[in-house]
Amino acid sequence: MTTSGRPVKATVFGTGSWGTAFGMVLADAGCDVTLWGRRAEIAEAVNSTRTNPDYLPGIELPENLRATTDAAEAARGADFTVLAVPSQTLRENLAEWAPLLAPGTVLVSLMKGVELGSAMRMSEVIEDVAKVGADRIAVVTGPNLAREIAARMPAAAVVACSDEGVAQRLQAVCHTPYFRPYTNTDVVGCELGGAVKNVIGLAVGIADGMGLGDNAKGSLITRGLAETTRLGLRMGADPLTFAGLAGLGDLVATCSSPLSRNHTFGTNLGKGMTLQETIAVTKQTAEGVKSCESVLDLARRHGVDMPITETVVEIVHEGKPPVVAVKELMSRTAKPERH
Amino acid sequence: MTTSGRPVKATVFGTGSWGTAFGMVLADAGCDVTLWGRRAEIAEAVNSTRTNPDYLPGIELPENLRATTDAAEAARGADFTVLAVPSQTLRENLAEWAPLLAPGTVLVSLMKGVELGSAMRMSEVIEDVAKVGADRIAVVTGPNLAREIAARMPAAAVVACSDEGVAQRLQAVCHTPYFRPYTNTDVVGCELGGAVKNVIGLAVGIADGMGLGDNAKGSLITRGLAETTRLGLRMGADPLTFAGLAGLGDLVATCSSPLSRNHTFGTNLGKGMTLQETIAVTKQTAEGVKSCESVLDLARRHGVDMPITETVVEIVHEGKPPVVAVKELMSRTAKPERH
Repeated sequence: MTTSGRPVKATVFGTGSWGTAFGMVLADAGCDVTLWGRRAEIAEAVNSTRTNPDYLPGIELPENLRATTDAAEAARGADFTVLAVPSQTLRENLAEWAPLLAPGTVLVSLMKGVELGSAMRMSEVIEDVAKVGADRIAVVTGPNLAREIAARMPAAAVVACSDEGVAQRLQAVCHTPYFRPYTNTDVVGCELGGAVKNVIGLAVGIADGMGLGDNAKGSLITRGLAETTRLGLRMGADPLTFAGLAGLGDLVATCSSPLSRNHTFGTNLGKGMTLQETIAVTKQTAEGVKSCESVLDLARRHGVDMPITETVVEIVHEGKPPVVAVKELMSRTAKPERH
Repeated sequence: MTTSGRPVKATVFGTGSWGTAFGMVLADAGCDVTLWGRRAEIAEAVNSTRTNPDYLPGIELPENLRATTDAAEAARGADFTVLAVPSQTLRENLAEWAPLLAPGTVLVSLMKGVELGSAMRMSEVIEDVAKVGADRIAVVTGPNLAREIAARMPAAAVVACSDEGVAQRLQAVCHTPYFRPYTNTDVVGCELGGAVKNVIGLAVGIADGMGLGDNAKGSLITRGLAETTRLGLRMGADPLTFAGLAGLGDLVATCSSPLSRNHTFGTNLGKGMTLQETIAVTKQTAEGVKSCESVLDLARRHGVDMPITETVVEIVHEGKPPVVAVKELMSRTAKPERH
């Protein structure tokens, strides 16, 4: 992949599993890729052993992917600057990197979350902190479990930007035989789909942990996507986005996979563990644990009813027993499917 | 559940797992339920041991559910006549029962298929054979794995009829604490959702059998639902039906469940078995094996492109190796998600 005769340069800020895996996709598509990470031992491992043992054990990284802890060096000359840090730390991290960004670089968000407090989507935080226009901010989302992509198993994805030409440029630099990106201009819908799926993934995990079965799972995913679509419509998103890879596709992959943190986290809650016990067992928190509060905040700001999200907040943060929550959801009055 | 002071009478033609389980729902909701079956030993077991050992082993049937092999006795006085036979035998069976039907009875289809040759939906076959109006034909569909419902695990469903009042009457007679029916007037969409999900369920099973992973599963379900919606739009269905329980919900339950015949059948094909070997191992065929041909027929009659359905037909009936089919699907040119 070249631009004006030289290889396209892409930098990924973040050496977690998805940042690293997407770096591999970019490298496999022919870009020169730099990973930035704060921890010297990870950068060292990437450069000397071609592995990221902490996040993608057993995976050999491509030759044209290297790592550094020097943010200025990483940012320099990047055609695409990919951001792959935890959602709630983006603002703080990006404030540090913003002065270093290459002029004209396209900022690409891999993050699926809504900022607590401000209820801002990740691309809004980027716009706010880096002071660049929406036409230079893109989002990559869809059914993209990192470990499967790192194993080069087939996947489809969505690359979204309000400027379709920018989306097409990004599509071209991350298209490989195993990774098939589709363009979309509905950034709001794509980001919401990604953020809310973490919450619905938690709900489905809780139901699975309770042993409620696959009929309940099908219903929860359907009604969860319906409430996501309601919120999206109110926020100006295209409802069809939620029926696509960034909505339905991502949600199904998350809810099917034992690799999904949100799903596993919910399963432990559904088995009766408290939030603290679940965090102790899984040794990490799940994105949906924070996102459920900011998504509910967003829903209230827009006057949208999201009963499943609300139930997740009650179970996760207010200690409501899952059995009580399910009885409440099932005992509402009979009604038409849409009203 | 009473009508004009007497209990509602419901008859289910068919003693398979879903017919029997839906009979249990009707009985639990307070109806007097009769199951009709051709095999005397099943009717005998239902009446004497309150079980259907062939189709729902280990499940105790309610007291207000009995069985008979006498079709005239079964049909007599039924407020609701539920049809739960294999799709491809409906025409022949119903021709036999049509003269026996109670005047004014509502015919309820539990079947998910499209008739081979005529490409008719099940409600169209009923209208054709029983000579009753569409306002007396209803459909029950959604994420309803029979064994889970028989175990009284929570489920939502759709009851559809072009006459909303009839849908509401049916909703009232099958609403229990564990079974939550929603009404819908889009019979075409509800029936298509059910028929095509068997085909997409086969495709997802094939992908699972090949070990393609959960990202591929998320993409296949998304693109499968997209092609179902395209066909539905052309046939006059409401596209939102496919985003609901009768489309997405049913598809997800099928693709998540080890209990699904279509999914299991596809998994064996994906592992490299031939059609004959798969039939030998599973000792039965799956609805989608026949439906994929009639759905493709329907798509061609309406000029709609359905690449996943087409691929399933090629793998199942024309012996195309699944690996070749996947390469073809992944190697199309990059494009926008909707065009």
